[in-house]
Amino acid sequence: MNNTIKKVGVLTSGGDSPGMNAAIRSVVRTCAYHNIECVGIYRGYQGMIEGDFKEMGPRSVNNIINKGGTILKSARSKEFMSAEGRKKAFEHLKKEGIDGVVVIGGDGSFTGALVFNKEFGMPVMGIPGTIDNDIFGTSHTLGYDTALNTVVECIDKIRDTASSHNRLFFVEVMGRDAGHIALNAGIGAGAEEILIPEEDLGLDRLLESLEKSRNSGKSSSIVVVAEGDKMGKSVFELKDYIEEHLPEYDIRVSVLGHMQRGGAPSCFDRVLASRLGVKAVESLMEGKSNYMVGLIQDEVTLTPLEQAIKGHYPIDTELLRVSDIMST
Amino acid sequence: MNNTIKKVGVLTSGGDSPGMNAAIRSVVRTCAYHNIECVGIYRGYQGMIEGDFKEMGPRSVNNIINKGGTILKSARSKEFMSAEGRKKAFEHLKKEGIDGVVVIGGDGSFTGALVFNKEFGMPVMGIPGTIDNDIFGTSHTLGYDTALNTVVECIDKIRDTASSHNRLFFVEVMGRDAGHIALNAGIGAGAEEILIPEEDLGLDRLLESLEKSRNSGKSSSIVVVAEGDKMGKSVFELKDYIEEHLPEYDIRVSVLGHMQRGGAPSCFDRVLASRLGVKAVESLMEGKSNYMVGLIQDEVTLTPLEQAIKGHYPIDTELLRVSDIMST
Amino acid sequence: MNNTIKKVGVLTSGGDSPGMNAAIRSVVRTCAYHNIECVGIYRGYQGMIEGDFKEMGPRSVNNIINKGGTILKSARSKEFMSAEGRKKAFEHLKKEGIDGVVVIGGDGSFTGALVFNKEFGMPVMGIPGTIDNDIFGTSHTLGYDTALNTVVECIDKIRDTASSHNRLFFVEVMGRDAGHIALNAGIGAGAEEILIPEEDLGLDRLLESLEKSRNSGKSSSIVVVAEGDKMGKSVFELKDYIEEHLPEYDIRVSVLGHMQRGGAPSCFDRVLASRLGVKAVESLMEGKSNYMVGLIQDEVTLTPLEQAIKGHYPIDTELLRVSDIMST
Amino acid sequence: MNNTIKKVGVLTSGGDSPGMNAAIRSVVRTCAYHNIECVGIYRGYQGMIEGDFKEMGPRSVNNIINKGGTILKSARSKEFMSAEGRKKAFEHLKKEGIDGVVVIGGDGSFTGALVFNKEFGMPVMGIPGTIDNDIFGTSHTLGYDTALNTVVECIDKIRDTASSHNRLFFVEVMGRDAGHIALNAGIGAGAEEILIPEEDLGLDRLLESLEKSRNSGKSSSIVVVAEGDKMGKSVFELKDYIEEHLPEYDIRVSVLGHMQRGGAPSCFDRVLASRLGVKAVESLMEGKSNYMVGLIQDEVTLTPLEQAIKGHYPIDTELLRVSDIMST
Repeated sequence: MNNTIKKVGVLTSGGDSPGMNAAIRSVVRTCAYHNIECVGIYRGYQGMIEGDFKEMGPRSVNNIINKGGTILKSARSKEFMSAEGRKKAFEHLKKEGIDGVVVIGGDGSFTGALVFNKEFGMPVMGIPGTIDNDIFGTSHTLGYDTALNTVVECIDKIRDTASSHNRLFFVEVMGRDAGHIALNAGIGAGAEEILIPEEDLGLDRLLESLEKSRNSGKSSSIVVVAEGDKMGKSVFELKDYIEEHLPEYDIRVSVLGHMQRGGAPSCFDRVLASRLGVKAVESLMEGKSNYMVGLIQDEVTLTPLEQAIKGHYPIDTELLRVSDIMST
Repeated sequence: MNNTIKKVGVLTSGGDSPGMNAAIRSVVRTCAYHNIECVGIYRGYQGMIEGDFKEMGPRSVNNIINKGGTILKSARSKEFMSAEGRKKAFEHLKKEGIDGVVVIGGDGSFTGALVFNKEFGMPVMGIPGTIDNDIFGTSHTLGYDTALNTVVECIDKIRDTASSHNRLFFVEVMGRDAGHIALNAGIGAGAEEILIPEEDLGLDRLLESLEKSRNSGKSSSIVVVAEGDKMGKSVFELKDYIEEHLPEYDIRVSVLGHMQRGGAPSCFDRVLASRLGVKAVESLMEGKSNYMVGLIQDEVTLTPLEQAIKGHYPIDTELLRVSDIMST
Repeated sequence: MNNTIKKVGVLTSGGDSPGMNAAIRSVVRTCAYHNIECVGIYRGYQGMIEGDFKEMGPRSVNNIINKGGTILKSARSKEFMSAEGRKKAFEHLKKEGIDGVVVIGGDGSFTGALVFNKEFGMPVMGIPGTIDNDIFGTSHTLGYDTALNTVVECIDKIRDTASSHNRLFFVEVMGRDAGHIALNAGIGAGAEEILIPEEDLGLDRLLESLEKSRNSGKSSSIVVVAEGDKMGKSVFELKDYIEEHLPEYDIRVSVLGHMQRGGAPSCFDRVLASRLGVKAVESLMEGKSNYMVGLIQDEVTLTPLEQAIKGHYPIDTELLRVSDIMST
Repeated sequence: MNNTIKKVGVLTSGGDSPGMNAAIRSVVRTCAYHNIECVGIYRGYQGMIEGDFKEMGPRSVNNIINKGGTILKSARSKEFMSAEGRKKAFEHLKKEGIDGVVVIGGDGSFTGALVFNKEFGMPVMGIPGTIDNDIFGTSHTLGYDTALNTVVECIDKIRDTASSHNRLFFVEVMGRDAGHIALNAGIGAGAEEILIPEEDLGLDRLLESLEKSRNSGKSSSIVVVAEGDKMGKSVFELKDYIEEHLPEYDIRVSVLGHMQRGGAPSCFDRVLASRLGVKAVESLMEGKSNYMVGLIQDEVTLTPLEQAIKGHYPIDTELLRVSDIMST
């Protein structure tokens, strides 16, 4: 490699997700392996603006591969949306000697990186970190696999009490614009019905499905609902609607909430984070910029940030059919 | 033992809790050990009324010690509240030859057992099964220890994201009339403040405490709230109140909900269930009735059902002081 | 589909793995969905020989998607290796009206299926179920992802005590002929060194690596060893060798053993099992036979059983480099 | 309180256990609460000899309540066994201004503390930290409850594979001189037989029990063996013996090993650690010395270190009877 990079900055931005620490570790150690300096930038772009930096060597990231959250912290920065704010940020990087930045985050974080690169020519690479799996250019974002396991473990617990009482549960999971979590965790948890933003099932079909399910001898049922479900109803309104039309059901609601974002990352997320961190740093070393590293068909691959931002990783519609068959 | 019991019925009633299956297993195997027949009664008192019975031998309860929920199912029975309903129930028991009943459940279930005993002379023994730990005559109800671990694991996950974003979380846990879960899990999860029904902390002191906490350099905070907190405000109203008075806080709410009732029981709950089941059956064999078996100072002990129903296991006020010191 | 299949038999064979129950559930429900009868065959080929069958409908597989092990049990059958044994088996299938068989297992189980098909023309489909991930034609065998998480969680615990005492641990994981578990879980657990059968690292390099690791300031280290490591030494001999040459190390050994085979399947394994079961049954309906259903580049794909048996899913050598960089 | 203590030192010594970090946190914050300074002493008595100290304030112990291991590290110190070594240690304490020490550890650590107090008059308090639960003066040592859950979860996994293959497993758990883990986790895991150092079951009775178990229709069995079992045979020798006498059994061995020492502490251990830390510091403030703080009948209680060292917390023999009944 004809490397001209001397000092890499790394930051996490947007919502945190399990595997971000493993990715930070990977970036830091890959730098050390290639004798490049590495600087942690705290609180995302806000810390860049404030010069909230810390030198990081391979021992700075001991024992973090298994920790949820992000040791570099995350924050949303209004200031970075202004040209003035970004100028401050660039001056801090320049002063520190940073000549390449790895941004771990989602859509919004990548948009910021692109603008920043356009204005100052700073080389940037993105690593997709979000539990929602809604980024184009990777089959798996960091934290998605962990979140699926968290959701499935929670619904396993809920099923204990659902089946003891012959109850129907509506379980709301994260995914404002994307049904990946709901669809996969719904199948994994053996849900009778799954409501996702990509598909408008319709209330009538939901009613029909629940009636069929009860008639087929099921004594309890789980319906998994993505928070951004297309029906436009909150999970509590759904409950009211079903109770009105199927009064024989004893319905409960559970909103899983922010715990889906935390926890020790799964092995998959730790390995993925390690692979993506290596690729991000080595791509900078090869003089590349404005790419996101991701996983496509099991291979680590580069996708232009511009595409990653615009596109969305689509729902596997075959899974809708699998879910339908499984709830026979 | 001068045993006259020939056939024991066992049922679970009220809200389910982890360890109920382990208790069923213990009752069934203790009967087998003493050459007494055992009959599982499905769906609590409702199944008793309907004669929904099943003979159970030691192999019927294989591989259930580690399962949450209750294989005998639970249900609330309005019919059992009528004299007529109870008469039907008694006739089913008589027909089946059942001459002693073990009731696994909470206050309400025990009240039903007492009335039933008074009317028909049927020997009854209670085993306390509820996650709330609110029953007099035992330091631990079945499922309480498991629920504490479930809550603490959830808050550990929430803390990952809270500390990544410097946020304040209000986490609502179960316990309508009793703050045991909130107090113990709150200490275990390192909560900055704990709101329980037994103590009216007052909104002013909460504000003060949060301000102190932030000033002492804490960047994120967890407040654990029992669902029946004395302030009479829902956790969402609390959030609004704090946001109004401490606008610098970025606040989120998480309602843990029914998952607290499920999951594989902890080792403690499995051992406790095993011990209580043995004692319940052997007490019936000794001709005893109208007692609850419980744990007092590490010893399995009998408490008259009447006392168990009236009293409440009190909060350990020393823990409030410990919590206060820990949030220094 | 021009379906001629009327009754499908399903069995599990060889070592069990998490996700087998989810695959059984999927086969049973896919049959029900398509109005095909389904029969569970107990204890693998041995149960086929003995006619140990049970009709299974969609409700027979309630609440098993999250259970480890296999409700159909597994066994090795010497009798099935004889022509006579297989004849008995075929006659039982014929008598029962079974005209297609889904075999969930590994290499050996597929070999049996192929021979059986050749002799009697019975249509057979294979689903890869083993934690070792050593089967050609699928990037993931059922149970592999779960086993990785189990191993990583165990090593996380071991690391707690390793780093408290500045110790070196050798952790032996499963994988007699394949280093997939060791390599991926090793990276996931942050192991300093990983020894796998596919690569002879050499004792000298291990010594060198451990010395380097200590000199770089690491106070504790984890070495993950696949049970079939090429050096041909048991993990205990390795310990002795290192202790002799690096006496300053305080070394402990941990053999994770059979717990790697059990536990609730991960979400990934549950979804994979659901998808593979659908494809296996529908392929039989399409008149296909002698294929294994597997996952290639995220797509469910058919591979001739003959190839699946002969080949091996290769180690991703890029991961060896990632592991090397991560232990900087 | 008529406090004369100005600066407390805290150390962990001997084998680590989950809950030690929670106890360190409690000691540090209790000191801060009472405006006492607190100093962490690294690597137990060895760090005391070397003056390896660090000032600790309430923020030094953020986010450690849920971490296994000990952030202060632990080590065995030969030098502390010499008068000269202890003199060095005392001089370091004196120089640092430390006038009270809290020792978190087991028997050996307490013996060192007592000698040290006798020689130099330094006030010392002990907190029992070991997973073995073998210390007199407390019903629960720190880490014991967590270890029970770890063991039970492991055996749950092993049972999946045991019952899929109709196998017999010997599972060796920790507890060199004490069968607490084996007995309680054995009951919790539904073991058919439990072998502990306190009771010589005898090989004949083990054989008999296994035969009875099989005859009663059990298809798989788990035998839990404490590592210090009285029969004086290793778990592998036991396997050979049973295989010779009951050749129909397919036996496997699993040695759970060091993972039992690690992992996030249970809620119980976190609350216990918090309570014991408060009591230890406040007892020093009251001018007390040479006591261990422990839990007796749910109350935090002081026991003279001398008694704690000599005695042992006895096995609850009633549990042996419960175990016997449960394996009916």
